[in-house]
Amino acid sequence: MSLFVQKFGGTSVASISHIENVARRIIATREAGHDVVVVVSAMGHETDRLVDLSNEIGTLTPPMFREMDVLLSTGEQVSIALVAMMLTKMGCPARSFTGGQVRITTDSSHTKARIEHIDESNLRGDIEAGIVPVVAGFQGVDAAGNITTLGRGGSDTTAVALAAVLKADECQIYTDVEGVFTTDPRVVADARCLTSITFEEMLELASLGSKVLHTRAVEFASKYRVPLRVLSSFRDAPGTLITNEEDSAVEQPIISGIAFTRDEAKLTVRGVKDVPGIASKIVGPISDSNIEVDMIVQNVAADKSTDFTFTVQRSDYDQAMSILKKVAQDIDARDVTGDNKIAKLSIVGVGMRSHAGVASKMFRILSEESINIQMISTSEIKISVVIDEKYLELAARALHSAFDLAPETVKA
Amino acid sequence: MSLFVQKFGGTSVASISHIENVARRIIATREAGHDVVVVVSAMGHETDRLVDLSNEIGTLTPPMFREMDVLLSTGEQVSIALVAMMLTKMGCPARSFTGGQVRITTDSSHTKARIEHIDESNLRGDIEAGIVPVVAGFQGVDAAGNITTLGRGGSDTTAVALAAVLKADECQIYTDVEGVFTTDPRVVADARCLTSITFEEMLELASLGSKVLHTRAVEFASKYRVPLRVLSSFRDAPGTLITNEEDSAVEQPIISGIAFTRDEAKLTVRGVKDVPGIASKIVGPISDSNIEVDMIVQNVAADKSTDFTFTVQRSDYDQAMSILKKVAQDIDARDVTGDNKIAKLSIVGVGMRSHAGVASKMFRILSEESINIQMISTSEIKISVVIDEKYLELAARALHSAFDLAPETVKA
Repeated sequence: MSLFVQKFGGTSVASISHIENVARRIIATREAGHDVVVVVSAMGHETDRLVDLSNEIGTLTPPMFREMDVLLSTGEQVSIALVAMMLTKMGCPARSFTGGQVRITTDSSHTKARIEHIDESNLRGDIEAGIVPVVAGFQGVDAAGNITTLGRGGSDTTAVALAAVLKADECQIYTDVEGVFTTDPRVVADARCLTSITFEEMLELASLGSKVLHTRAVEFASKYRVPLRVLSSFRDAPGTLITNEEDSAVEQPIISGIAFTRDEAKLTVRGVKDVPGIASKIVGPISDSNIEVDMIVQNVAADKSTDFTFTVQRSDYDQAMSILKKVAQDIDARDVTGDNKIAKLSIVGVGMRSHAGVASKMFRILSEESINIQMISTSEIKISVVIDEKYLELAARALHSAFDLAPETVKA
Repeated sequence: MSLFVQKFGGTSVASISHIENVARRIIATREAGHDVVVVVSAMGHETDRLVDLSNEIGTLTPPMFREMDVLLSTGEQVSIALVAMMLTKMGCPARSFTGGQVRITTDSSHTKARIEHIDESNLRGDIEAGIVPVVAGFQGVDAAGNITTLGRGGSDTTAVALAAVLKADECQIYTDVEGVFTTDPRVVADARCLTSITFEEMLELASLGSKVLHTRAVEFASKYRVPLRVLSSFRDAPGTLITNEEDSAVEQPIISGIAFTRDEAKLTVRGVKDVPGIASKIVGPISDSNIEVDMIVQNVAADKSTDFTFTVQRSDYDQAMSILKKVAQDIDARDVTGDNKIAKLSIVGVGMRSHAGVASKMFRILSEESINIQMISTSEIKISVVIDEKYLELAARALHSAFDLAPETVKA
């Protein structure tokens, strides 16, 4: 007998008939002899509806953050009530829990709180009594009893944290996709659902635009060694298991997946004097405006001046450009150029550690397709390149094929 | 400086612009130098939306009642967040409280819980710090921390209970009508908004179909001597003050109001043997089917048999009739007749206590209009009659005029 934490996202509980489907899955797991703790998100577009209401009041200022959490947390509360009612109606004893009722204690950072402690006693009592606890994701309470929410991807984080505290055998994230794919199936027709992947790889893929799982939940699962499975709530398929590298019995492929995002723009300050502190003078004002800087590349030129290039989200491009023009004057740089028609593409795989020449193979394949690489950035298990947006699909397909990601034989 | 509990119903917070209007009223009260504690209901049709969701799951059974409360309580939680956000945006410090956060402790009767205790310390702290507490009506928690709801009229009850605990100077119930009227203005054109009325009168009017205030809240206010004011959230008018009889300085009029309801049906068992226990043999099976019996009249005839008549809600008529036909056979009664085209009309006033002849005046006026009285029932401050539904408007207008309810001079 195993204990599973099963988390169902917004699309999985979007209507009463969806909720009936969710209840059937939970009951099937129980009938297979396992215990289940359920975590649910708000129904479909409920969070959007609530955010729209608050937008009608006006721009959210920090004194309003506390109330925003009171507002948003109702979305998950509706879901837990309906799921518990449906389970009860279908003959499965169930009880709903708000974050406060479990006692999921967080810090007081409203709208982006961090979990500090989870009291497992209430849930444990219900599990032992044969009752399925249905827990509201995304929410907690601070030490003073104020309602808090965990920010984006919060329900996944709740599920992983409960699985860690309850020492569950697996945390199963039910979603509207079949699992983690080698790359986006809409771009590469023979993209394949991975049987397993390591936390490290998943983290690189998640932060690079694969929207299956939120980075924070994966980090949490990795830290507490919670086996995490992503699977479809609409199809019967095993999905993708995310575990530690050493837990994986089979030999790792060189690369596991290809991630990409079109939501990029690059800016270059040219003719910057190559003196200490110049990087922070350029990036500082950008960060101060709450614009996130992603890749940064600096080349040293022969004449003691350098070009400084970085990427931002495309939506921040115009603002970043106007800030940078001022900065360029202040630091006496030659000029500022930019391009908001770029894309970032990354290959990810723990196999890179033991295989040399992965980067050069990637560059050769892109070169064979006459695709110019504008920027390069690497980590231990990832190589990212910035290319012209119009070549993105071509590059993804060429790499997917060259690194043998398609055939079913790649992974056990 | 006074302390007011101000309660705003669903129509008063139906949209963000309505909520802005509510915030303006609260701020105006504060600027007049008073402290305010706010109680709000769910927005407009929000409760209906939530009930519809639960109806999609199926018929509510007792094991689902706990979850129904988790579901319904989100309605008020959305309202408190939005009202507190709006107040904050308009420069008035405010903080929302769920029932659980105040610590409004109830028994565990889900969907119809009774308040057992209110912890005033959190609210008192905010009031003293110049912060407006915005409390969710209709909800509490039981001793184990389960969310409960108070049933129909629950938000009014919350407001009155808070006013009692905080020893507020007045509990103000803002609604979509101007106050308590002498009778229904849609039926009697010169119906008038009362300046004041006693709790007793209000109780009789509330239970007789004037839907301004729920009986339970009035009983609660009467018991704890909380001055209660009903007023419009859309117009600037003093509304109606409901107080104890002895607190009212002016002389009471003989009658204060005329209430009526068309939602009635009567059933008669004829030729019943006049032996002890026969009434319970007739009414028992009706009550056992959860049908509420209202007026009961029994006449003793010369031949030791009697006719037994009672009224029920019109929607229960068919079911009551079929039950009664079986009962009539069992107790060997002659037959059963019925009429579901009747109406009940009542005149209410504490002045009846000191004025004889009110009943005979009422009967004479109806007789002058050739209206036949089918049943009569009286209490210390009320006389109710059952008449043919088609004469209801005529009767109401005739009595309203005959008892001088229209002119402004009736009440100070």
